[in-house]
Amino acid sequence: MTPLQRLCIIGVGLIGGSLARALRQAQAVDTVVGAGRHTAHLQRAVELGVIDEFSTDLAVAVGGADMVVIAVPLKAIRPVLTAIAGRLAPEAILTDVGSAKQCVVDDVRDIFGYLPGTFIPGHPIAGTECSGVEASFAELFQNRRVILTPLLESQAWAHARVKAMWTLAGAEVIDMGVRHHDDVLAATSHLPHMLAYTLVDSLARLDSRAEIFRYAAGGFRDFTRIASSDPTMWHDVCVANREPLLDKLRQFSHDLEQLTQAIENGDSDSIMQTFQRAKHARDNLYLD
Amino acid sequence: MTPLQRLCIIGVGLIGGSLARALRQAQAVDTVVGAGRHTAHLQRAVELGVIDEFSTDLAVAVGGADMVVIAVPLKAIRPVLTAIAGRLAPEAILTDVGSAKQCVVDDVRDIFGYLPGTFIPGHPIAGTECSGVEASFAELFQNRRVILTPLLESQAWAHARVKAMWTLAGAEVIDMGVRHHDDVLAATSHLPHMLAYTLVDSLARLDSRAEIFRYAAGGFRDFTRIASSDPTMWHDVCVANREPLLDKLRQFSHDLEQLTQAIENGDSDSIMQTFQRAKHARDNLYLD
Repeated sequence: MTPLQRLCIIGVGLIGGSLARALRQAQAVDTVVGAGRHTAHLQRAVELGVIDEFSTDLAVAVGGADMVVIAVPLKAIRPVLTAIAGRLAPEAILTDVGSAKQCVVDDVRDIFGYLPGTFIPGHPIAGTECSGVEASFAELFQNRRVILTPLLESQAWAHARVKAMWTLAGAEVIDMGVRHHDDVLAATSHLPHMLAYTLVDSLARLDSRAEIFRYAAGGFRDFTRIASSDPTMWHDVCVANREPLLDKLRQFSHDLEQLTQAIENGDSDSIMQTFQRAKHARDNLYLD
Repeated sequence: MTPLQRLCIIGVGLIGGSLARALRQAQAVDTVVGAGRHTAHLQRAVELGVIDEFSTDLAVAVGGADMVVIAVPLKAIRPVLTAIAGRLAPEAILTDVGSAKQCVVDDVRDIFGYLPGTFIPGHPIAGTECSGVEASFAELFQNRRVILTPLLESQAWAHARVKAMWTLAGAEVIDMGVRHHDDVLAATSHLPHMLAYTLVDSLARLDSRAEIFRYAAGGFRDFTRIASSDPTMWHDVCVANREPLLDKLRQFSHDLEQLTQAIENGDSDSIMQTFQRAKHARDNLYLD
């Protein structure tokens, strides 16, 4: 028996599509049902071999699924939950891929009226600056981490099945508390995206923007690649993970002001210390 | 006859070493003389086949050279100029690779007492986060740009020879005014380095730093790679290109504050506009 009989993926984009591809490649699923708003898009996913069937009626799509994965932008999770509430099979597991977790937990509690033992919040730390099912590929989660944030209410068997699914998709699965997840991600992912978006937007508004982008070197290209990420998705992250992100933005602004003052005052010691600490951390805290 | 008979490279590191390798590979130089402070380092450059001979006495090293390239960190240029003033052959061309240009022009005028017609300031827009002759390679300048900022005093034949040298090394050479160069580079290179250093240093000082770096995704790694760059070199850039850099830092801080306020106020329109403008600029203004 395959690990999953009927997998329903709501939102067949880069993440949802790649999960479907990975599980099919691992022969870990019998049938993949896609769900979303746009027939043409879902039809394309069938043609690409990502899903077997689809419905634009979410209540229909989740019927009979043993695993339901919500893979839509954060702000779209609430209407999805409204559409599927009371329509899941009794033992169906519900998980998501949202890059902030407290807001999803709040949404589930609000819409369902309680936190089901079969709900296991999740977040694959994977993605590219591309989006859409056309950009999906089976190897996206290979050697990447998936963070699960099981709740007090979560049942162990459901947690184990979500963990098994991501492991079969090639990922390393780790558990973390909801608040801690949101704090760590604000620092490592949400803040850097804000900096990249702000930098590119700042430069794009200068008169010499064409020249500036033309003479930009390799480091700049790497640095700003994440500014090509999907604006809607990142808008939703800003709303959903507002407090932890604001906290990190304020800390960064403070630190940048310190460096700016050191440059203004010609404080070489302070400048060197910042650069050396950063280089040391970058070179030593993890490997590329 | 080869384009260069005796090339003297002062500072045989990533840039100087790569230029020597590229010109040797192009059979564009007869003899490469290395100059620097450390005998062991220069000896290693000979063993690696990067240079033919060397001297730690700069005045000796430049003797008889038809091309002298200063490839040391910006702050070290002034003492180098002091050591070689009056020791260059009459027709010897002097150029440099400093990532800010007004400060180098000022140094030459101060030390030499005038701006020689054979002095052509230069800046290859190339490099990696590695440094040192061990990291040098002949292809570093392939398809990269070198900006020359010839002065009113510069002689056309000298300008043409520096341009020919970089073209032979594989680069596309373009001319720019000194002040304009410093402004464009502050925006595209110096500011992003400040952001990367500040971000990594900020995160490295958090209690959860080990976890933060462990769960950092690909985008973060790309984003922070430049924080591994040589601290001394970048300290010198901050001092040498102080005013243009401060200008860009202040503009960025202002823009980041605007975005922070939009997030704080839940101003979705403003957040989306910033992200969309940035994505549009990143996707359209140049190709990867």
